[in-house]
Amino acid sequence: MDYTLEEKEGFMREALREAQLSLQKEEIPIGCIIVHEGQIIGRGHNAREELNQAVMHAEIMAINQANATVGNWRLLDCTLFVTIEPCVMCSGAIGLARLPQVIYGAKNPKFGAAGSLYNILTDERLNHRVQVETGILEEDCAQIMQDFFRLGRAKKKEAKAREKALLLLADESD
Amino acid sequence: MDYTLEEKEGFMREALREAQLSLQKEEIPIGCIIVHEGQIIGRGHNAREELNQAVMHAEIMAINQANATVGNWRLLDCTLFVTIEPCVMCSGAIGLARLPQVIYGAKNPKFGAAGSLYNILTDERLNHRVQVETGILEEDCAQIMQDFFRLGRAKKKEAKAREKALLLLADESD
Repeated sequence: MDYTLEEKEGFMREALREAQLSLQKEEIPIGCIIVHEGQIIGRGHNAREELNQAVMHAEIMAINQANATVGNWRLLDCTLFVTIEPCVMCSGAIGLARLPQVIYGAKNPKFGAAGSLYNILTDERLNHRVQVETGILEEDCAQIMQDFFRLGRAKKKEAKAREKALLLLADESD
Repeated sequence: MDYTLEEKEGFMREALREAQLSLQKEEIPIGCIIVHEGQIIGRGHNAREELNQAVMHAEIMAINQANATVGNWRLLDCTLFVTIEPCVMCSGAIGLARLPQVIYGAKNPKFGAAGSLYNILTDERLNHRVQVETGILEEDCAQIMQDFFRLGRAKKKEAKAREKALLLLADESD
């Protein structure tokens, strides 16, 4: 699991590709892959709206797929790459899957549980500790999130302007 | 969501029925149900070993089922009943599903994240707070866990004794 910086960036680019799949469906664009001995054994992207499942974050989808690939709930000797710092649920899931290593792109100051709000992955009271690294392709991982939220705000503004115009038209036709 | 003590005990008995399903498959016996206006809309039991899925705790199974029942990832106006205090992952999932109320039977001092190790459900920094109640059928919920772990220890002891006997036989036949 000692990947070179180039390898780590290559894997993070794969996670970003997953995030793009979320973006195309107008979901919060977070992507994840799980790697075992250099091979990708699980992929996931946030699909909460598409699947109507509260728990379907990128990490959960990737863990489920990796569990199916290896036929075991333990993901020993695997590395999870995710574009954004995992939330509380996903940090808990990473520990439960016994993943030894997590590499994430950008921090999530509002909901992150791998250093920001909590330190779930390194909590010595829990029965599993995870090695955490951050900052790989940080700007790209943060940028896709910013683009998504900017687009959302622009859409809201447009909808409001349209509503206002319709109200004006209705007034005039009275 | 203001259920009487009798109603709460009735729902917790349903959660215990789910825990029994785990026990029958030699899984850690935790059960969960989700109730909307007095109707059960999701059921779940720990099935990690059976399904080889690290995340398949009772609460996750019940949340997935309830999401499918209502066709929405938000479980507004619902109550989650679970036999044992939720772990970090499940507490995170409960918040993500926007569940407003959680009632659990017995505390989990080692892994509980709804009062024991963490207070995820009432953390004011997160964007969703959950009303938490505990102690409903507490003894029954704790008892089924104790039975499971006692049985596990007895089985281990038996296996060790059998191994020892086989070694003695092997020695005698030399």
